[in-house]
Amino acid sequence: MTNQPKRVYALILAGGAGTRFWPASRAARPKQLLPLLGAEPLLRETALRVLPLCAGDIGGDATPGWERILIASGRHLVAPTASILPELPAENLLAEPSPRNTAPCIGWAAAIVARRDPEAVLMVLPSDHHIGDPERFRQVLSVAVESAASGVITTIGIRPTHPETGYGYIEVDAEAAAGGGRPEPLKGLRFVEKPDRARAEEFLKSGRFFWNAGMFFFRAKDMLDAIRAKLPSLASGLDAFDQAAAEGRELEEVARLFPGLPSVSIDKGVMEHVDRLAVVPGDFGWSDIGSWLSAWELAAKDEHGNAAPSGSVFVDARRNHVVDLRPRAEGSKRVIALVGVEDLVVVETDDALLVVPKDRAQDVREVVEQLRSRGDGDLI
Amino acid sequence: MTNQPKRVYALILAGGAGTRFWPASRAARPKQLLPLLGAEPLLRETALRVLPLCAGDIGGDATPGWERILIASGRHLVAPTASILPELPAENLLAEPSPRNTAPCIGWAAAIVARRDPEAVLMVLPSDHHIGDPERFRQVLSVAVESAASGVITTIGIRPTHPETGYGYIEVDAEAAAGGGRPEPLKGLRFVEKPDRARAEEFLKSGRFFWNAGMFFFRAKDMLDAIRAKLPSLASGLDAFDQAAAEGRELEEVARLFPGLPSVSIDKGVMEHVDRLAVVPGDFGWSDIGSWLSAWELAAKDEHGNAAPSGSVFVDARRNHVVDLRPRAEGSKRVIALVGVEDLVVVETDDALLVVPKDRAQDVREVVEQLRSRGDGDLI
Repeated sequence: MTNQPKRVYALILAGGAGTRFWPASRAARPKQLLPLLGAEPLLRETALRVLPLCAGDIGGDATPGWERILIASGRHLVAPTASILPELPAENLLAEPSPRNTAPCIGWAAAIVARRDPEAVLMVLPSDHHIGDPERFRQVLSVAVESAASGVITTIGIRPTHPETGYGYIEVDAEAAAGGGRPEPLKGLRFVEKPDRARAEEFLKSGRFFWNAGMFFFRAKDMLDAIRAKLPSLASGLDAFDQAAAEGRELEEVARLFPGLPSVSIDKGVMEHVDRLAVVPGDFGWSDIGSWLSAWELAAKDEHGNAAPSGSVFVDARRNHVVDLRPRAEGSKRVIALVGVEDLVVVETDDALLVVPKDRAQDVREVVEQLRSRGDGDLI
Repeated sequence: MTNQPKRVYALILAGGAGTRFWPASRAARPKQLLPLLGAEPLLRETALRVLPLCAGDIGGDATPGWERILIASGRHLVAPTASILPELPAENLLAEPSPRNTAPCIGWAAAIVARRDPEAVLMVLPSDHHIGDPERFRQVLSVAVESAASGVITTIGIRPTHPETGYGYIEVDAEAAAGGGRPEPLKGLRFVEKPDRARAEEFLKSGRFFWNAGMFFFRAKDMLDAIRAKLPSLASGLDAFDQAAAEGRELEEVARLFPGLPSVSIDKGVMEHVDRLAVVPGDFGWSDIGSWLSAWELAAKDEHGNAAPSGSVFVDARRNHVVDLRPRAEGSKRVIALVGVEDLVVVETDDALLVVPKDRAQDVREVVEQLRSRGDGDLI
């Protein structure tokens, strides 16, 4: 194909904070840094999942890939983020001096990539999602990359499985064909914010609405053009970054200007306004692991539905989710035993224990509030 | 009173093992060594509770008391038992070389006391019960001591509050007067083993049956006479202990002979056969803390019925019992948070966590069985 890119970069957005997974997730150890479902932290799983795309499978060259992965995160997360990604070149970890939503850091990444190769395609991906079928995921992404390489800003739409009111939607101009073949990009009509229940049910029925999973694909130069058209104050900042980079003082300039950039999401700031948008239907077992309940649904379970560290003991206990994040000394033994309980989440860290029914897990935020108001911020 | 004893000794039976309170109670840390209800281990609370009786309040002399407290325990429990009773003279900790039920160790203690003063009264007391009203407890015990000092083997009967099928009963020859005055000893007719539900209800209705709480009172010489009459093989062993003690080699002789002594309870071996038995009604808030449920009933609770370490966080959680026995480093913080759960027992130790509904706590034995059968004996 004439539009096949020589280079594919990934920008993984890993600045997320949040208390939904307290006490597992903490201010200094947010969800993406946790091994919520497997042996690896979600961010590392994300990076490893897309590494083959960046390593030249598509572009045709044979670089190992890590130098084409960019990670955006907050300053206070640089150390723990770097420690789970030892292969990542230090300069590829973009530390946002202050949180300004997604548009500024995506713009910054686009500027960095454009300096190397304005034709390169950049994939923007969340760091804390679960992908059930990574092979299919890469196949769908390669279609999105091709679409982007042709100059069309592209996103992935997740086919809805239920009338979810917690996600944004993307409307396309035709029903997508279901099935496992190579997906065709559809024409995107508009982004829709989180709907109420009735609209969500309409969306589901229509077959023309997809969930917005926050994955975006574009040539670096196309995103910079779009930002210049839609977010001129951000474009000015990025110009200043380029100028400073040429003088070897980019990080100082970022530190100085970033906090003043417009705090806006890429969805609202750019995507909703682009003239041509392509949507590639994604069917690869996607979940944003939004709660302990969905973590349990995705986790490996025994025949009674219990997800737990090996060695746990269950007596007449069903559908529980046990997470043990305590550091373990070599050779030390430890057991978690649940007797006669159902549908509980039990989370152990070295300084906290949480017991909550799976369907009440969202109320954990009240625990966090109590700890905050009594001055136990170090437990949050 | 002419029969008032010059000396009162206590023998506290602290050899108990058991898994009902796993993971709090362990082979090397049975229930009596645990602070199940307060700041002090139950055994230490028991010793401190009776210390005033042994310190001469009744006998009229003014010794500090600890030298008249004897503790019977198993060999493997000597070190942890001694460590919670630093005031106890080492020779007062009677280590049974092997478990032979209660008659041999009570006989041994009677022999030791008789060598010092055959007229002295010995109180035999369990180590792991809760007494709600220690002042009343001592008042009742002083009546039992007086009764025993007159030459009548005496026990305490707990007035039943419900048709319990888990305790033995003692029948007396008349209904006891209720009320808070100085209790009168009643004439005991017989010991009855754990009844079925129907009989337990009859017992409760009759007003002439008391719970056997395993507390016995006698002059040392009276118990030795009773043993000589009813358990001659035990009497021979005790004679050999006396002989060896005179030669300064008692412990060697105990080690040699104790495992061959008849393994029988003092109830069955002696009490059921004595000609005269006095029963003092006891009304001092007694509980044998037989389960996590009764531990919770006795524990201090917040307005929602939660018993927990200070600093625990409860959100819409009621009637839970949280026990944290993990060693805590100075200044370290730790929180246990329960959200949306009711009537749970949550027990933390440094190597185990248990979650079980209060009314299922007896099923903890199945956890212990699973651990045993998979070779995790060190977690039991």
